Amino acid sequence: MPDPDLSKELARANRAFYRAFEELDWPAMEALWAADEGVRCVHPGAQMLVGREAVLESWKAIFAGLPTLRFDLADVDLRVAGDLGIVTCEEHIRSGPGRQQPEFRAVCTNLYVLAGGRWRLLLHHASPLARRLGP
Amino acid sequence: MPDPDLSKELARANRAFYRAFEELDWPAMEALWAADEGVRCVHPGAQMLVGREAVLESWKAIFAGLPTLRFDLADVDLRVAGDLGIVTCEEHIRSGPGRQQPEFRAVCTNLYVLAGGRWRLLLHHASPLARRLGP
Repeated sequence: MPDPDLSKELARANRAFYRAFEELDWPAMEALWAADEGVRCVHPGAQMLVGREAVLESWKAIFAGLPTLRFDLADVDLRVAGDLGIVTCEEHIRSGPGRQQPEFRAVCTNLYVLAGGRWRLLLHHASPLARRLGP
Repeated sequence: MPDPDLSKELARANRAFYRAFEELDWPAMEALWAADEGVRCVHPGAQMLVGREAVLESWKAIFAGLPTLRFDLADVDLRVAGDLGIVTCEEHIRSGPGRQQPEFRAVCTNLYVLAGGRWRLLLHHASPLARRLGP
């Protein structure tokens, strides 16, 4: 059985990742990624970026060019397996206020690794999701 | 240090996955997926499928509708972490013979879990990659 505290911490780390993205909080985003040359990141439709430097540079560029976004997560699933945490979810992204339809949906695999007792991002893979019809 | 035999076996399992896909070998594909209700699969541009039944049904439908394909893999990276194996790669897919440009490129995260001493697929996440210019 996985440690329930580790699962809770994993959920918290994943929320912190999306909060950093939503608030364009660069220090928080930087701190969330593992100090590991094997970190990997796929932004929707893009190639896989490898290594902490390339990954963090991509986030810096995104943060510089984006307006504030609102993320709602759906179908969040968490799994702890040893020192790894696997989170899958759907990102529903809106750029304006209110309850309008999401402008962009992505499906995500986020892998976290335990480092010094804290979950850090090892891999973020987001892929574009065709718009669904209906509400 | 990860067991070098486990890394070799992980590489072999990943090759077997793409060979099964290439050869539309249904029994091989079915055997490659973990007997785990948490298995997950994202085909390019699609939603995340959850559970062995939904995932295997999607492969059956793909196998029924596809011509034989040729897969070349690029940038294959493997990492063993306890009972989990993480493989990332680029799939370059051609439907015809010869050396023409790939018709489709996808970037992949494949997670494997050790079950009975063998690596089985726990998650396959493939996302479309915009065509690159040049050779």
